[in-house]
Parts: sequence; C-alpha cells; structure tokens
Amino acid sequence: MNLMYDDDQLLPIEQVFRDPVHDYIHVQHQVVLDLINTKEFQRLRRIKQLGTTSFTFHGGEHSRFGHSLGVYEITRRICDKFARNFPTKEPGDGGWDDGERLVVLCAALLHDIGHGPYSHTFESIFQTNHEELTIAIILSQETEVNQVLSRVSLDFPQKVASVIEKTYPNPQVVQLISSQIDADRMDYLLRDAYFTGVNYGTFDLTRILRVIRPYKDGIAFQIQGMHAVEDYIVSRYQMYMQVYFHRVSRGMEVILDHLLKRAKKVYQDPSVSFKHSFSLLVPFFEGNFTLKDYLALDDGVLNTYFTLWRADQDPILSDLSTRFLDRKPFKSVTFSKQTDEAILEKLSKLIQEAGYDTDYYTAINNSYDLPYDFYRPETDNQITQIELMYPDGSFTELSKASALVTSIAGKEYGDERFYVPKEFLKPDKSVEITLFEELYTGFSKYIKNGAIYDPTKNE
Amino acid sequence: MNLMYDDDQLLPIEQVFRDPVHDYIHVQHQVVLDLINTKEFQRLRRIKQLGTTSFTFHGGEHSRFGHSLGVYEITRRICDKFARNFPTKEPGDGGWDDGERLVVLCAALLHDIGHGPYSHTFESIFQTNHEELTIAIILSQETEVNQVLSRVSLDFPQKVASVIEKTYPNPQVVQLISSQIDADRMDYLLRDAYFTGVNYGTFDLTRILRVIRPYKDGIAFQIQGMHAVEDYIVSRYQMYMQVYFHRVSRGMEVILDHLLKRAKKVYQDPSVSFKHSFSLLVPFFEGNFTLKDYLALDDGVLNTYFTLWRADQDPILSDLSTRFLDRKPFKSVTFSKQTDEAILEKLSKLIQEAGYDTDYYTAINNSYDLPYDFYRPETDNQITQIELMYPDGSFTELSKASALVTSIAGKEYGDERFYVPKEFLKPDKSVEITLFEELYTGFSKYIKNGAIYDPTKNE
Amino acid sequence: MNLMYDDDQLLPIEQVFRDPVHDYIHVQHQVVLDLINTKEFQRLRRIKQLGTTSFTFHGGEHSRFGHSLGVYEITRRICDKFARNFPTKEPGDGGWDDGERLVVLCAALLHDIGHGPYSHTFESIFQTNHEELTIAIILSQETEVNQVLSRVSLDFPQKVASVIEKTYPNPQVVQLISSQIDADRMDYLLRDAYFTGVNYGTFDLTRILRVIRPYKDGIAFQIQGMHAVEDYIVSRYQMYMQVYFHRVSRGMEVILDHLLKRAKKVYQDPSVSFKHSFSLLVPFFEGNFTLKDYLALDDGVLNTYFTLWRADQDPILSDLSTRFLDRKPFKSVTFSKQTDEAILEKLSKLIQEAGYDTDYYTAINNSYDLPYDFYRPETDNQITQIELMYPDGSFTELSKASALVTSIAGKEYGDERFYVPKEFLKPDKSVEITLFEELYTGFSKYIKNGAIYDPTKNE
Amino acid sequence: MNLMYDDDQLLPIEQVFRDPVHDYIHVQHQVVLDLINTKEFQRLRRIKQLGTTSFTFHGGEHSRFGHSLGVYEITRRICDKFARNFPTKEPGDGGWDDGERLVVLCAALLHDIGHGPYSHTFESIFQTNHEELTIAIILSQETEVNQVLSRVSLDFPQKVASVIEKTYPNPQVVQLISSQIDADRMDYLLRDAYFTGVNYGTFDLTRILRVIRPYKDGIAFQIQGMHAVEDYIVSRYQMYMQVYFHRVSRGMEVILDHLLKRAKKVYQDPSVSFKHSFSLLVPFFEGNFTLKDYLALDDGVLNTYFTLWRADQDPILSDLSTRFLDRKPFKSVTFSKQTDEAILEKLSKLIQEAGYDTDYYTAINNSYDLPYDFYRPETDNQITQIELMYPDGSFTELSKASALVTSIAGKEYGDERFYVPKEFLKPDKSVEITLFEELYTGFSKYIKNGAIYDPTKNE
Repeated sequence: MNLMYDDDQLLPIEQVFRDPVHDYIHVQHQVVLDLINTKEFQRLRRIKQLGTTSFTFHGGEHSRFGHSLGVYEITRRICDKFARNFPTKEPGDGGWDDGERLVVLCAALLHDIGHGPYSHTFESIFQTNHEELTIAIILSQETEVNQVLSRVSLDFPQKVASVIEKTYPNPQVVQLISSQIDADRMDYLLRDAYFTGVNYGTFDLTRILRVIRPYKDGIAFQIQGMHAVEDYIVSRYQMYMQVYFHRVSRGMEVILDHLLKRAKKVYQDPSVSFKHSFSLLVPFFEGNFTLKDYLALDDGVLNTYFTLWRADQDPILSDLSTRFLDRKPFKSVTFSKQTDEAILEKLSKLIQEAGYDTDYYTAINNSYDLPYDFYRPETDNQITQIELMYPDGSFTELSKASALVTSIAGKEYGDERFYVPKEFLKPDKSVEITLFEELYTGFSKYIKNGAIYDPTKNE
Repeated sequence: MNLMYDDDQLLPIEQVFRDPVHDYIHVQHQVVLDLINTKEFQRLRRIKQLGTTSFTFHGGEHSRFGHSLGVYEITRRICDKFARNFPTKEPGDGGWDDGERLVVLCAALLHDIGHGPYSHTFESIFQTNHEELTIAIILSQETEVNQVLSRVSLDFPQKVASVIEKTYPNPQVVQLISSQIDADRMDYLLRDAYFTGVNYGTFDLTRILRVIRPYKDGIAFQIQGMHAVEDYIVSRYQMYMQVYFHRVSRGMEVILDHLLKRAKKVYQDPSVSFKHSFSLLVPFFEGNFTLKDYLALDDGVLNTYFTLWRADQDPILSDLSTRFLDRKPFKSVTFSKQTDEAILEKLSKLIQEAGYDTDYYTAINNSYDLPYDFYRPETDNQITQIELMYPDGSFTELSKASALVTSIAGKEYGDERFYVPKEFLKPDKSVEITLFEELYTGFSKYIKNGAIYDPTKNE
Repeated sequence: MNLMYDDDQLLPIEQVFRDPVHDYIHVQHQVVLDLINTKEFQRLRRIKQLGTTSFTFHGGEHSRFGHSLGVYEITRRICDKFARNFPTKEPGDGGWDDGERLVVLCAALLHDIGHGPYSHTFESIFQTNHEELTIAIILSQETEVNQVLSRVSLDFPQKVASVIEKTYPNPQVVQLISSQIDADRMDYLLRDAYFTGVNYGTFDLTRILRVIRPYKDGIAFQIQGMHAVEDYIVSRYQMYMQVYFHRVSRGMEVILDHLLKRAKKVYQDPSVSFKHSFSLLVPFFEGNFTLKDYLALDDGVLNTYFTLWRADQDPILSDLSTRFLDRKPFKSVTFSKQTDEAILEKLSKLIQEAGYDTDYYTAINNSYDLPYDFYRPETDNQITQIELMYPDGSFTELSKASALVTSIAGKEYGDERFYVPKEFLKPDKSVEITLFEELYTGFSKYIKNGAIYDPTKNE
Repeated sequence: MNLMYDDDQLLPIEQVFRDPVHDYIHVQHQVVLDLINTKEFQRLRRIKQLGTTSFTFHGGEHSRFGHSLGVYEITRRICDKFARNFPTKEPGDGGWDDGERLVVLCAALLHDIGHGPYSHTFESIFQTNHEELTIAIILSQETEVNQVLSRVSLDFPQKVASVIEKTYPNPQVVQLISSQIDADRMDYLLRDAYFTGVNYGTFDLTRILRVIRPYKDGIAFQIQGMHAVEDYIVSRYQMYMQVYFHRVSRGMEVILDHLLKRAKKVYQDPSVSFKHSFSLLVPFFEGNFTLKDYLALDDGVLNTYFTLWRADQDPILSDLSTRFLDRKPFKSVTFSKQTDEAILEKLSKLIQEAGYDTDYYTAINNSYDLPYDFYRPETDNQITQIELMYPDGSFTELSKASALVTSIAGKEYGDERFYVPKEFLKPDKSVEITLFEELYTGFSKYIKNGAIYDPTKNE
C-alpha cells in the first residue's frame, strides 16, 4: 500500500468549515484535511486562544482551533490572489510560485500547534517553549501531524518547520506567516474582536487582500492601500491597549502564575506525601516531560487540578486555586519603576503586616507592545518592515507614508502594574472590616486616580 | 453587622459586561453583581452552552456563563419597557408591578445554574436532573447563591425558585422566563447563531421588545409585531434543523453516551482494582453524589478523565475516549422506525461480524422539536400559547394570525438516525481495506442518498 | 480603427466597486466596464430602487444602479463556481459552458435598464412598460448600451435581449436571471434589507452559492442546502409583508398615482394655456414618446415638476403635489371585497360630502404576492419550480421537501386597503375640527382595529 | 383655539423610525414629530448627504433626512444618560438640567436644515451660506419649522437658533451639537461608513455614550474611555482620507463647479434669449433669491436643469452637463504648490493647445482637514478641545493622554490636485488617438506615480 499522497492531492470535493469570522474556511487538499483531523490539532479545541482574557471579556472563550483554521484561510485566499495576479514567470522576477502553496498552507495551519494551556504563564513556570514544541510536533515521528506531512514527501515536515523557524529560503512564504502584517496577526485581531465583542480590532481585510502582493524580497502592499494598512496598525495598537493588556485579566494571570509556582513548591516539599492529584503535571514539576506528556495537557486538565487543589491542605495553594476558579482577581495600580520603588516597598510591607505572604499575594506585571517598527540596521532588531509599492515599482516604508504610523513606530506601549489582593484597594462593604481599617487607610494614601502616588511631593 | 441588603439595593454606579450579542450587559443591583460573583455562577464559564455542537460549528465554544448574562439582560430590558409603558395602577389591571423586577432578574440569571457538563448525555447516564439541581443550588444553605439571595429576604430564595418552577403566582413573571417566546430562548437563538456563525437564528429582537407587553394572564405581543414574532418562530425552527440537530454533533454525542456508559460498567466491574482515575466521578458511578460533588464537575473535568482513560486497559473505554477527544464521530443514515427495522437488524449483524460490540458501536438517535404549539385543553399539553393583542384590547392566538406558523404549529420536526463507525459508510482510502471490503459492500447496498433503503422494493 | 473587442476581453487589471452588500463588485471584462459607463446605465443612479418605500423606511434611498451591479456580482460568483465545479464536458451533460459567461453577465447587469421613475405607478398611467423598454434600450442602435454590446459581436445585443425575454436556448442562463430564486431576487432582498435596516430579508447567500448547481434543464440546488433555500423563501415572504407592502408607502403611492392622473387631465384640458412646466412630460401626456424622451426621465425630473405644480392654478394638482413632496400620505383601512363593498360606498359618500373629489381623494390598493409556486401543468402558470438534487442525481421539488414552503406555496399573501385623507382616520388635534367633527364620528363607527367593520352585525 | 403645546409635550405613545445605523429613532415629543413633518424638513429627503461622493461609493446615496434624525437620536440618548446619571442639583454644579432637553433636541434635528443641493459647490458659485440659511429657516415666520417651534414658546425659535450659532449660554448644550466630538460628527461618520460600505468610520459609539458626561464648562469624557475617543478621532481622519477627499468624487465636483459657473455666464450673456430652462435658478443667477426660492431647490431640480442643458446650444454648458450626468470625471495628479507651479503652467498650455478652454477644463482642488486640535490661546482658533476627566474630578486634554492623537493634532491632512480631462492622463484605447498622441506624450513626461514630476531634476 502506497502511503504517499498523489501528486494531485486536491480533494474531489472542497470541504468547508463554517466560521463566524471568514464565513467559510475552504479546505481543498487532502493533506490539510488530514492535518485538521490529527489528535494534536484537535487538541487545540481544548486550549483557549486568549487565556485569562475571557475572565474580562466573557465572549472571548474561543479556542486556538478556530484561529489556526483562520490563519490557514487567510493564507489560502492570499495564495489564490497571488496565483491569479502575480504568477512568477522566471526565477527571481518577484512573482509567486504556486508550488509553494502547500508548504505555506501547512505552516499557516500548524504555526500554533505547540501551544499549551495558558501558554505564557505555564512557560514561565515550567520552562516550556511553544515555538520549540511546535517544531518538535512537526518533526517528531511519533505525532500524527508528522505522519500526515511525511506522506507528501519525506522532507516535507522539515520544510514546514523551516517556514515557521523563518529559515525557509523563499521570503514571501516566511513573511506570509511571520511579519508585522501576517496572516496570523490578521486573523487573531479580527477573531478576538469578534468574540470579545469589541470593535477595535476591526480593519478592512478585504481591502488589504486586494493590495497585498509578492515581490523579490517578500510581501509588499500597493500604495493605494496605505490607509488600510495604517488602519490595521492602529487596530492592533487598540487591541493591545484595550483587550490584551486589560488590567483585570492580568490580575487573574498573576494569580495563575503564583498558583503554579506554589504547586511546584508544594510538590517538591519532601513533607508532602499524597501526590495523586498532580499526576499529569508530575513530569513538569520534575522537569523531565516528554512530548506525549505535553500533548496530554489542556486548559481543562489544569482547571481540574485546581479543582482538586481547592481542598489541598496547603492553605496558599488552596486559596489561590479558589481565587482562580471563582474569579477573584488581584487588583492593581500603575506605577513608574523609576520614581515609585520606595513606595512599592512600603506597600508590600503593609501587606505583609496584614498577614499575607507577599511572594504569593503581590505581583508586578509589565505589559508592553511595539505596535510597529521599521528596520534599524544599527540594532539587532531584525524586523521585517512594511513596504508599500508605487505604480512604477519603487518602494517606501510604511511610516514614511503615514503620519499616524510614524507617531507610534518604534515606541512601546503599555504599563507597569502592582497587584495586590482586592481588599487593599476596595473595601468590601459586605464584610466586617474594622480590624483591617487602619491598614487600609495607610495603604490608600499612596493611591490616587488608580496610580501610585507620593503624598510627600507636590504634583 | 447587618448582612441584609438595604431596601435600595442599587449599585452606586451601574456596572457593565461587554457582550458581543447585546453590546453591554447592564448590572444595576448589588445582589445581581454578587450572584455573578458566586462560585456556582462562575463555574458556568467551564460548561459549554452547546456541548458537542462545537465539534461541528467550531465557533460555538461559548459557555453557559454568557448565555445566563444574556437572559438576564433581555429580562432587564423588558422590565424597563414595562415599567415605563405599562405600570400597574391597581391590582388586577394587567399592568406591570416593578416590585417584581428583582425576583425576575434573579430567576433569569439563575435559570441554568444547575447545568452540568454535557448535560443531556450526563443526565441520561447518571440520572441527574439539571432542573432539580437548579432549585437545589438556589435553596441549599451551603451555596453562595443561596447566601446572596437570602440577604434580600429570608424567603427570597424560595421566591426565585418558584419562578423557575412556574409556581410563582404572577404569570407575567413566570412567562418572561419560561414560555414559547421567553428571554431564555431569545438569548440562546441569537447567541448560538452569533458564535456558530450561521444566521438562521437571527430575528428582530429590538422589534419584539417594542411590541411585548404585560396583560392580566401573562405576556402578550401587540398585533403590529406579528411578523417579528412569526420570524422568531421560524428562526427557532431553522436553528433546530440546521444547528442543534446536526447529524455530526449527534455522532459525537452518541460516542460520549457510550463512553460514559462503558466507564460506569468498567468501574462497577469487580475485577478492576486501580480506580484513582475516576475520583471526582465516583459518587456518580455509585449513585450517591452530593450537591458539592456535582458542583465540582465541568467540561474540563470530564475531558481530563477521558485523557486519562485513553490509556485504560479496557479497549472499548480507551477507544471511545480517543474517538471523543480526537473527534472521530460515528456516521449515520436516516431511517424510519416503521419500515426499516428489519434492515437495521441486518446492518447491526454485519457490524457485529466485523468484530464490534454493537452496544458501544451502534446507536439510534432521535432528535425532534416542536417549534410552536397552541394550547390544547383536551390533552395534557400545558403550553402557554403566544397571544397577540389588538388595539381594542382583544386577543388572537399566533397561529390564527400567521399562515407560516399554522403550517408548523403542533408538528414535531427532526429525524431518526442510525449511527455506526465511519468505516461502514465511507471507506478510508488512506488505509488498507481489502479484508474489510466485502462487509462494506454488503453494508452499502442498504444505503441510498444518506438513508436506509430496502433494495428488495421498487421505489 | 477596429471597434470590436478582442477575443480576450479581460481587463488587464480587475476593477472593483465598493459595495456595502457584497463588499466588492469585481469587474473583469472591458465590455462590462464600458456598459457601466454608458449614459443609460449611469441614469439608474437617479432612479430609486424602492420608489415610495423610502417614505416609510428612510434608509431605503438606494438607486437601481447599485442593485444592477449587485445582480451582476451574484451572477459572476455563480459563474465562477460553475466553471470550477461543474464544467460541461460534452453537450447535453448538464454542465456549465463558460462560453455563456459574458452573455449572462451582461443580461444580469442590464436586466433593469428599462426602469423609469416610480415605475409601477408611471407605467399604469402612461402605458409604458419597463420590460419592453429594457429590450428596446439593448436593441436600439441609438443607445450607448447597444453600441457597446455590438462591439462583442453583431448579434450579441440580440442574445442578451433574448436572455431577458427568456427565449435564450440555454435554460441555465435564463434561470440565473429569471426564476423563483435568481440573482435579481437574491440581490434585492439583501440590498433592500440592508438599506432599510430591517433584517427580514437576510438569508444565507454564501450557503446558497455553495449548493447551487447547473443541470440539464436549468439550475438546481443540492439537497443539503434545502434549509438555506427554505430560509430564502421565508425571507422573501417577510420582506413583502413587512417592507414592500407597507401601508404607509402605499399611501404615498396612491397620491402619486392620482397626481399623475390629474396632471394628465389638466394637460389635456383645452382651457389650460400655459404648459411650459410640463416640458419633458409632454410626449407622455400626448402618448407619442420616443426612447430618448423616456431616457430623459428620472425621479428628480418628476419631483421637479411636482415642485413647479405646487403653484399650479389647479387646486387638486397643487394639493396632491404638495402632499407628495411634503409626505402627507393617505391613511387606510383593510377591507374585504366580498363583504364590505356597501360600507365602502357609504364611506366614499361621506368623503364626498366633506367636499373632496373621490376620484382623487380615495383609492383602493391591492398588494398581493405569491412567495413561491410549483409548476402546475393544468394552468397557464409557466413558473420554473425550485428543484433540489439528491446525491444520486435524482430531484425533488422544494415544497415536497419543506413543510414550511408547502404551507405558503401557491398562496397569495397581502391585503386590500381603502385609502382616504388622513383627517378621516385620525383627527389632527392641532387644528380646529369642530365643523368636521360630525363627519368624523360618522366615519369612525365603521372602523375597528384598522379594518372596515360592519356595526350592524355581531362579530 | 390654543396653538401652544401643553407643558407636557410628550406624545402619548413614543413613535419610532426604523434606522439602519441606530436601529430605531425614538420620537417622544409632539414638537419633534411636528418638526419632522414640516415641508422644510421633508425637503432634506431630496438632498444627498454626500454630494458627489456617491459617484465613487455608489452606496452613499443617503439623504440629509436620515442624518438629521440620527443626530437627534444620539443627542436624545445622551440626554437620557445625563438625566439619569448626572442631574444638576444646584446651579453651577456642572450637572445636567433636563429642562434643556427640548432645545437641544430641536437644535440637533435642525442643525442642517439650511443645506441645499450640492452645498459646497453651490455656495461657492451663488454666495449662499447654509449656516445663515439654517438660522433663517428657524427664525422666519413664513416657514413651517418656525411655526412649530413658536408653539413651544415665542422665544423658542430664537433659543434653538442660538444653540446652532453657539451663543446659547449653556456650553453643555452648545457642545453636544458643535464641538470636535459632537452628535453631528458621530452620526455622519457612522452613517457614511454604513452606506458607502467602508468600515473606516466605525468607532465604538456605545462606549463613548458610556463615558460622556457634563461638567461646568461643557462636555467631557471619563478617562477610562480614552481609547474609544482616540479611536473616534482616528476614524474621522480615515474617513476624510479615504472617503470624503476621494480624488474621483472631487473630479466630479470640479465639473459641477465649472458647469454652474458656465450656466451663470451663459444666462448673463445678453445674446441668450431663450431662458425657460433656467426658471427655478433665475433668482440665484440674478443674485436676488428669497428663502422660498432657496427651499424650492434640491438635487433633482439641479439634475433636471442639467438634463435640459445637455441640449443647450452652448457647447461647453452642454458638454459639462453631459459629463456630470453620465459620470465622466476629470482625472487628476497631485502637486505641490511651492515646487510645481511652473509645470502646471506648461500643462495648462498643452491643454489649451488641444483646444480646451482651461477655465472650464482644468481645475485645482485642495482638500484639507484638521482631524483634531487643542485650544491655542495665542491664535484665533476658538476650538473646544476634548477634555478627559479623572476619578478625582481633574481634567486632561486628549492629546496629552494619547500619543496617537498627539501625532495628528494640529496638523492638516489632505492634498492638492490638478484636474484635467481624462484623455490627458489615460488614453482611451477604444477611440482614434493618432492626432492627439503627440500632445499626450508631451503631457505624460511630467507625470510619475500619480503626481506632477519635474523631469529636469534628479529625484
């Protein structure tokens, strides 16, 4: 039996997935359909795209599964446009070689396959890395993904991996998946905006798909679409400011971080004897996990441990698990590292005096994003800047054409926040607070308009 | 310390939740906010609204949390309209008494609080009942929900429960939550349509909110809004036909059903000694669960057991768990009970011959819905029919005014399907099927156009 | 100079028109672009799609220009699907011959080119016929449309005309433009719903485009799309009931009708000497208009005459012009021809007694639509019924598969209304009505719940 | 008979207008309903909101009628929020006095009542001024608008006028109608975006309505809504760049300008004897128009004259009328006043050599907008800057809080274009151009990438 795909791997009948963002996802290749049906890809249904953001925007409960299909679909539509309008005629002419279609489609579909539950936090505690894991899933012969890819050709998994690693020789293919305006970003902005119900992430995808084009060194945009590209950059900036960096979601994220840190500590405590409720996490606590261990995890698995840990004898582990499951976020104030460090120390001390272990009950969380940057040869920023093409074939870099983009290019946006249990920032009127009142009053004099404030200085 | 709410329980500042369906959910009462913050309500974030439907419509991953807020919000908007336009002036005049607002808002918010993971299937295997559990959560003194409700008044939990049980004396309040056109149905149609990305469920909510009005015996609609109500009925019918009864989601549901049935059997098998991986489910297998046991369950908990059971030594449990997690639905054909029973038997026999235990590898699934019915005094249908009101105050029942509704009133729609492993209906070209070929050919001659077919009869 | 198009008439670069309904209209042929740029087509910008409906739904001010582009675009998308999925391989196999593309695109674009201002009313007064005029514009050598079409081939205008006249030999081409589910109807339902802001007309165009397919005798739909087709039929029904037949728009239409009738009479009155303000309408009053005369008319031209006639010495012409421009619709009640004729006479008499010429101040307006019908060989209904195709290639007619459609198939929906000046149905409190009061009271006793009512009968 | 409204002018039943942008417009006062029914307000149905923009974005055919309702509706919603959340308790406390509601609603509704057909161009040719005419319509006793307003109180028309003139004492009322983020701008951005089908104009109105609040000196926004305000400013900028300043619409506007200029000249030519086809325009040509003359004009009236002038004996008038009606825009290149003046002269000379009167066949069109500015005491910019309010009641100006706004504040955006007949920029392959070829070649060497270019300089 020949396990390789035929040369012509097109499905006899195109298959579709209904999608609220792109209407339909169109699957035309057997290999793409088979990849979607692998267990590694199906697992993405059990991992939320936005982690703790759904604690703030309750609509944002969608998984990485739909996003991965969406990135695939945008890439597919771009390939269609390129094949129709800009086919290469001879090597090096900057046109699109449709022989690249399959590799770029598979890379688009699989670019997030290595994500685990609550990726960002999990990675920082357990030293996992979703990018390395993505490559491992594609290359390891034990995965279904690898088996499907290998049926195209033996070196096909390696090719797909190299697109994601940005070492694939054709820069057009790489930039479709990874650049400052790639299929990944375009899908997640639209998708996250749709599900959360905000409209900051909305930009004109149809218009961008009309002006995108290949050229010798990658992907460019025709100059008449400048405002659509500009609008995309602004949408991205707005989504970071309004959704991704929302202070309340970060107040849940710091709980998650402290909770996992505590669990690890409790596990490693020799005095803890009864460990059954750590089972699937043991390899991570012990630092010797396999790919198979990793693929057994998902959001529900972590939440199930938190449910079990609610009843743990360790009071901190139990309390933090409860706070996380029942959504009791830490509250926060902004501060400035340069000027407010002394005050931070005072506040931490007050919290300690109230009986809290500040390792687990305070946190500093920085969230910064660079909405757009241009290439700076003098630094090691190796960013692909956005190029606009004139009718005569010459180029200009985006921020040279857009005042709006100039204003935000190269600058990081975000803030630095100090997180503490809610009771320090907002007394709960429904509980008795007399004993606590003095501490609260001491605390509040350092806070003004949601920021740390030095009462000893004039404003 | 007084733990009761003040008479005036309004929040100093209204709080909002961004919602993709209703734009904002507006919370104006302290008690409503506190209910949302209970652990029982937060648990709804971990239970999908649509169960296995998201295996077909991948966007439909939203939880019961957002839906519960949505039902609350529609109810709140209706209360606002009623209070402004139809306030009661004297008892029995059919106007709206805004003193009912708090009880109806709480009932709206909590109407689904007793749902567990994959409710429909779970209930049939473990004899739980989400309606009884809803009442239990409201009335049991051990829940946070009960404690919050009790702070309004000691009999308030009982009042809220009676609205959900339809024994509350004011029929307006009952019908807002439970009738053929209530806040629950209106929210789920719109919400499920939004998240799945189909538009069959879309109807004109704003127009319905303009024509809804209280009257002596409940809720009616002004005659000029007849077409909006008609359109709602048709949308409901379409959502059932197109989304809720989708054959593929049911193909996952039958796997889930068989999987839980098998787990119960394996658990009860005296030869099974190592049971740790059933922990949170044990009380259900043993039939002695408490409310606390029930509230520890959610979708992720079930999926975590399935992940553990993938490696179980029982081959059927392991296989069905894998099929569920990796989305390998059973496939199906329609049949008619009256005429096709003999053929069903033949097909089951073929499946058995192929080595499958038909108790776990075949299923019959019926899905029928009654989109609308009118009151029939002669039967025990105790349905509240939809009443339309003329300018002069007289009424007519909906199906009398709408030919479209007449055509579907009182009729059940749906189908009966026979489910089998995929390989019997669609040979997988990527695997060796020679051995299997004869069976497959034998099977296929009984199938035509997706239905069971009797080859011995002329059509 | 060669005035014929090249064989390959594709534009070097596709041109697009931004469209709120279809996002973009894609123009790929030089001949299509040239047709859009003809003066006859540009004139459609000055003719509203919905006539007097925008007096009720103020958003519905869009012109026939956008609709014509929309019909073209839906047709183009269908051609793309047909060419990709169902290309003909040999004559008579029921596949799509893409050589038909240009003729069907041109027919789609031009199918409404013969419409004039307020078509329905204008035609009934002046015996014009927009269908005949469409053919005339396509065939007359004096039009730019004809000159552009002739550049494809000398018989091309005739071909395009025959598609619109339904005499073109290929039934697939004819049915795309004219059938019970054609590109024309699909566009106007979506477009009119978008602009008026109602959502009754929304159906799932993308899904319909997925299941539409050619067959030997025309156009069919794959059975799995049955519910999308059903939903389209219901949407159509709802738009007629809710928008197109709105009683207030019809109250403006009857004024327009009477106004044009009066103008014609005044023109023909030998005692009227000063006729300059009829200039562009003279050929229509005299019944000897040319195609050029017709093409000079548009909504603005008619409204300009009404503006001039406001000051006419004929009091009825002046009054009706004012009522039309200032939106003072006649009001109406429903009635039943069989039972209420005697009452109608009484009411007309009362109106006459009040000093109104009932020829110009009362009207009967019937609006009925047949949402769907199946072919009935015994009558002269020559309708093309909607065919659904099974996987095995067999067919079933829509109403056989859909209970919803069965319920409305073959039945006409609408009503019959009696229109009178507003003051008879709703006294204007801001004006002195003492003198009028008795008449009003006499009138009102025959009206109940918006319908004519016989007070002598028990209900 | 008492012609004054009662103290309580609320309608017994709220009336609604279906609106695609705001869903429903809610009318609650008799005076508002009566204003909508005046002939001056109904006339707005016959005047397009976007003038020549619909020649580029064919969906943008909506009239000033819907926009005026929309401005009213946004204002009404703001009043509701202010009355509920920020009622004044004592004079000068910065709260909202709901006694201002009626005057601000009427001002919102009527703010554009003085607009005529193609306002911008018409005004520049005939020295009319839509702002003065708005005031005149409100104050002149001959209008229905004035009569309705006077029924509230004799000084009410003057009050409404003073709001529009910005002399009304309460700055909150003035700023709701006229400021950098007022109900007028918010409605037109959303409305124009909806009808044209672009999505640049979309911003989060619901969020802005949540954070808008009155204060002592006018209207402010709570700091937590900063990003929504920022997004509104960017949307405004994008709409100007992408829609309002579209080069093709301006290519139609310059034709309209030249056409009216030519008509005026032809009218004033003593050798022209036959003037009937200027009738309604005569008072404007002669510079002695009355309010009544002005109110007789609308888009259709102007277009009707253009239709008549197609056949005029003056070849320029006839040609320009034809170009306008048949949409043959002039084409353009950008240039820079400082550097390109010499080249402009050369190009004009070439056009003259080709036989065109450059007064009528060339044009310079500048379109610049200031998306946002802050108050600058040193200049005579009397702009109301956007103020953001902190929780403690202190304020900051928008651009101080938003880097994005800083980047565009105080700067004008737009371009300067030189318009010429199409044949100079894009040879029409379908016509004989041999004779013209040399001129065309001479012309093209000064054009590069759509801009004027000096071939003698190195770039």
